[in-house]
Amino acid sequence: MNEPRSLWVSEDGQVVVLDQTLLPHERKELVLADEAAVAEAIRAMRVRGAPLIGIAAAFGLALAVRDDASAGAEQHAAARLLATRPTAVNLAWALARVRTALEGAPYEERAARALAEAMRILDDEVAVCEAIGGHGLALLRGLPRRGETLQVLTHCNAGWLATGAWGTALAPVYKAHAAGIPVHVWVDETRPRSQGASLTAWELGEAGVPHTLVTDTMAGHLLQRGRVDVCLVGSDRTTARGDVCNKIGTYMVALAAHDNQVPFYACVPVSSIDFGLDDGAAIPIEERSAEEVTHVRGQRVAPARTPVANFAFDVTPARLVTGIVTEHGVFPAGGLDVLREKIGA
Amino acid sequence: MNEPRSLWVSEDGQVVVLDQTLLPHERKELVLADEAAVAEAIRAMRVRGAPLIGIAAAFGLALAVRDDASAGAEQHAAARLLATRPTAVNLAWALARVRTALEGAPYEERAARALAEAMRILDDEVAVCEAIGGHGLALLRGLPRRGETLQVLTHCNAGWLATGAWGTALAPVYKAHAAGIPVHVWVDETRPRSQGASLTAWELGEAGVPHTLVTDTMAGHLLQRGRVDVCLVGSDRTTARGDVCNKIGTYMVALAAHDNQVPFYACVPVSSIDFGLDDGAAIPIEERSAEEVTHVRGQRVAPARTPVANFAFDVTPARLVTGIVTEHGVFPAGGLDVLREKIGA
Repeated sequence: MNEPRSLWVSEDGQVVVLDQTLLPHERKELVLADEAAVAEAIRAMRVRGAPLIGIAAAFGLALAVRDDASAGAEQHAAARLLATRPTAVNLAWALARVRTALEGAPYEERAARALAEAMRILDDEVAVCEAIGGHGLALLRGLPRRGETLQVLTHCNAGWLATGAWGTALAPVYKAHAAGIPVHVWVDETRPRSQGASLTAWELGEAGVPHTLVTDTMAGHLLQRGRVDVCLVGSDRTTARGDVCNKIGTYMVALAAHDNQVPFYACVPVSSIDFGLDDGAAIPIEERSAEEVTHVRGQRVAPARTPVANFAFDVTPARLVTGIVTEHGVFPAGGLDVLREKIGA
Repeated sequence: MNEPRSLWVSEDGQVVVLDQTLLPHERKELVLADEAAVAEAIRAMRVRGAPLIGIAAAFGLALAVRDDASAGAEQHAAARLLATRPTAVNLAWALARVRTALEGAPYEERAARALAEAMRILDDEVAVCEAIGGHGLALLRGLPRRGETLQVLTHCNAGWLATGAWGTALAPVYKAHAAGIPVHVWVDETRPRSQGASLTAWELGEAGVPHTLVTDTMAGHLLQRGRVDVCLVGSDRTTARGDVCNKIGTYMVALAAHDNQVPFYACVPVSSIDFGLDDGAAIPIEERSAEEVTHVRGQRVAPARTPVANFAFDVTPARLVTGIVTEHGVFPAGGLDVLREKIGA
């Protein structure tokens, strides 16, 4: 496969990632030589995006076991990696998966088994994203569009930089572009961390997908003036009834899409659907540092000592979500029980 | 009156403004010594906000007539001032008002008459804003609030920095604060030019009004979680049927307010209501430079050569607007014909 990867194993067996803190200004490959390097990369957000964090942590644990195959070393390494971003669900899940693969393995096989499981996690995640892209492509093919070009609007970065490859919300876009469907993406800059401006615009530029960067405040105007055919976003957590928790600002995009009868889809791996939770309002919303709002790339834009609130996510109620695109197909937001039965979750 | 002014005449007769390009980092008073200095200040956005631009231009013309009282000089100065920001309606209106006051005046009285008319324009604009504040205060007193403190959300800067004094949307807030009503303002940063972060947060801080800065993307979340009692915004142009054209992003705030049954008011001088236009969709939307989006205070956040769209305003349809606060009282957005009859417009 030739699609871009955010993490890969080189021919000489090294784990390599792109340092996302340097994007979009510099494309720098970073060799993660050992578990400490992986932990630093996650902590410093050189790798980010829930799926990618999980993948990276799995490789971090594999490197730890390569350097010391004892059960004690494995346990300590897992604890250290888990502590890098304590709230990320994928992190715990990926580490547990590697540790399960090591259960009962002969000592001399532990390093190889850990590495093999990390590779499987990477491959599985990529396959999931590609399947989301396939189902999303079928969806996009069937959508009415106002002009020759399909006009997509996205928020934040749900592209291959956030996953192993393909991305979630951008996977259907890449598939459509490859299939020769004329497609153009409106990219919300996504304040305060500017993942749209810094990452999504860069990804699309590298792939040659036509796109235009706008401030988050412009999405409503574009939707109102008939410039958007479909909104595609990712999701950090989707509830059983279809409420979508995603990057702050997603709810306002969904409101504007709904007000203008434009379809709004969340593209999510099944692993991020929380079938144990119905009401999205029950999801605690992470608050982050004031500096993300008061400063942009080190430059202060607000008065000193201005009080700031910085909510990282919001919840879009299912009534505003046209559908959920998963690796198992597209489901109405209010019909995830069908998906649940299908996969036996 | 002790309320802060954005433009004033000093005891020794000099026209003084605050250089708004230096805010919030530095509060610098700028003496506008002659017409050329006024023109430069408008062009460089040292003074901004439609009402303030008009006031400043009136003083610019008065200074020109002081330095050369001939009709030819008056005409040339008016043309130069008009060209500084060709799209601002208030600019043309204020210049015309000074020129009308000069009609038939004896040569030796022309300088004094021009200055007197500029002073009257300033006083009139301040009185209009104070009246908006008074009607807005009565409105705020009658609003249900969820807690002890009245929670206001505003977008962009519609404070005294944009007008002669008081402001439009912030005038009721200042009146409420002075009246002892506990009030707190959520300040949208207002990308791309950050007028909320740079100007509104500064104004409120100077006045001691409790406030919290948020990104534009957070307004929806705050409204959804019951953290806002009322939204107050300004307007650059309001149509006869109550469509509100204002800073880009206002429409998305109104959608979120409507979705959560929170009242949304535009505070506007009658002079900015366009009774000759019904449909806000007919208002042409100014597009500004890409650099406002790709750069923040000189720092690039997007990849080089990223295509950008930069719409400066959007239109909030009347159905999302609870009411219009004017110097003549508060009217339902769909009931501006009553106001029109009242004032004979």
